[in-house]
Amino acid sequence: MIPIISVVGISDSGKTSLIEKLVAEFTARKYRVGTVKHDVHGFDIDHPGKDSWRHGQAGSRVVAISSPEKIAIIAKVNQELTLDEIVGKYFYDVDLILTEGYKRETKLKVEIWREGISQELLSPRDQILFVAADTDKKFDGLVSFNLNNISGMADFICQSVLEKKHPQVNLLVDGLNIPLNKIMQMMVANTIEGMIASLKGVNDPQDIQIRIHRKNK
Amino acid sequence: MIPIISVVGISDSGKTSLIEKLVAEFTARKYRVGTVKHDVHGFDIDHPGKDSWRHGQAGSRVVAISSPEKIAIIAKVNQELTLDEIVGKYFYDVDLILTEGYKRETKLKVEIWREGISQELLSPRDQILFVAADTDKKFDGLVSFNLNNISGMADFICQSVLEKKHPQVNLLVDGLNIPLNKIMQMMVANTIEGMIASLKGVNDPQDIQIRIHRKNK
Repeated sequence: MIPIISVVGISDSGKTSLIEKLVAEFTARKYRVGTVKHDVHGFDIDHPGKDSWRHGQAGSRVVAISSPEKIAIIAKVNQELTLDEIVGKYFYDVDLILTEGYKRETKLKVEIWREGISQELLSPRDQILFVAADTDKKFDGLVSFNLNNISGMADFICQSVLEKKHPQVNLLVDGLNIPLNKIMQMMVANTIEGMIASLKGVNDPQDIQIRIHRKNK
Repeated sequence: MIPIISVVGISDSGKTSLIEKLVAEFTARKYRVGTVKHDVHGFDIDHPGKDSWRHGQAGSRVVAISSPEKIAIIAKVNQELTLDEIVGKYFYDVDLILTEGYKRETKLKVEIWREGISQELLSPRDQILFVAADTDKKFDGLVSFNLNNISGMADFICQSVLEKKHPQVNLLVDGLNIPLNKIMQMMVANTIEGMIASLKGVNDPQDIQIRIHRKNK
């Protein structure tokens, strides 16, 4: 799986601003970044009357709009997707994913601290990668950065998160994530890499996706 | 792969209307339908100032917005995706995909004919599943329906497209689709199904997705 870091903090603590700055910093460093915004209230992104909106109103479960510059997908879900589901299903060609919110999931956290407003840390300490604070306050046993020290935070993320060499194997069966331990991941990766190694067009692959669909089995 | 049918026709021939009616008809028949709109001019779907828009402006390659009812993905692309790429990457849990446009791809076509306006059929005859015409004109060697005969068209699509039992295997390596012949598809499907059959949580799977990612190999 692609590494995921969640930026959390109380309301109006500056989560979007910090994400903007980190995305710009990593992009300048030639990393490809993706982002996820958690919207508990629902959202309207498509415009009434547009062709794609009409597709959705008629009952289409997944509506795509494709142009030479970008693609948009709007998919109805029966229940809210987890971060692993979102990333496993929809994220390609990125090196790092930053999320806004998702404090209840167990991903690594960057927690924003606002002196005089924040009361206590929101995240379990073992999930906190570092605290980004608007003060010089120290957080016992935790790494912390000043909120303005974007390059310091990016350096730390590079060193502690982005340098890994083991294959990451993600298996979804009928839409559900099936956890695989490290040995099973290595076995699945090696088997599949071996099976496709001699195919035309396959040359030292870094990212392999396979989907098998049986209908009316 | 999920079956794909492209609704094509000259400008203002009623492609969106026909798609709306077919989506509603298949949805009423308990099929799950997805749609793809081809937008050659580019589109703006996200709203300036919104958090997700700010993520994209900062450089995020893939922006997701997730709520309990739906998920939206906006991904930048280096070049326009083909239908196979769009469907292989982004479509889950649908039985049929209808596209608006894409007359230059080689998918099955439903071609709309407007008497007195349409000059000749736009699609190669061997790609035409049927013609949907606003007249009783016959098209030599081709199946045709009156544009209002939605249930007739849906019956025909059910019989000729939706009843297949072989596994469909889709392989993407570093983002590129690697074509597999039927025998290779069967071999990959059987190997992977065998490999995961004894895992906890796996029980007669209909849809399996595996993704393997190696960094700095």
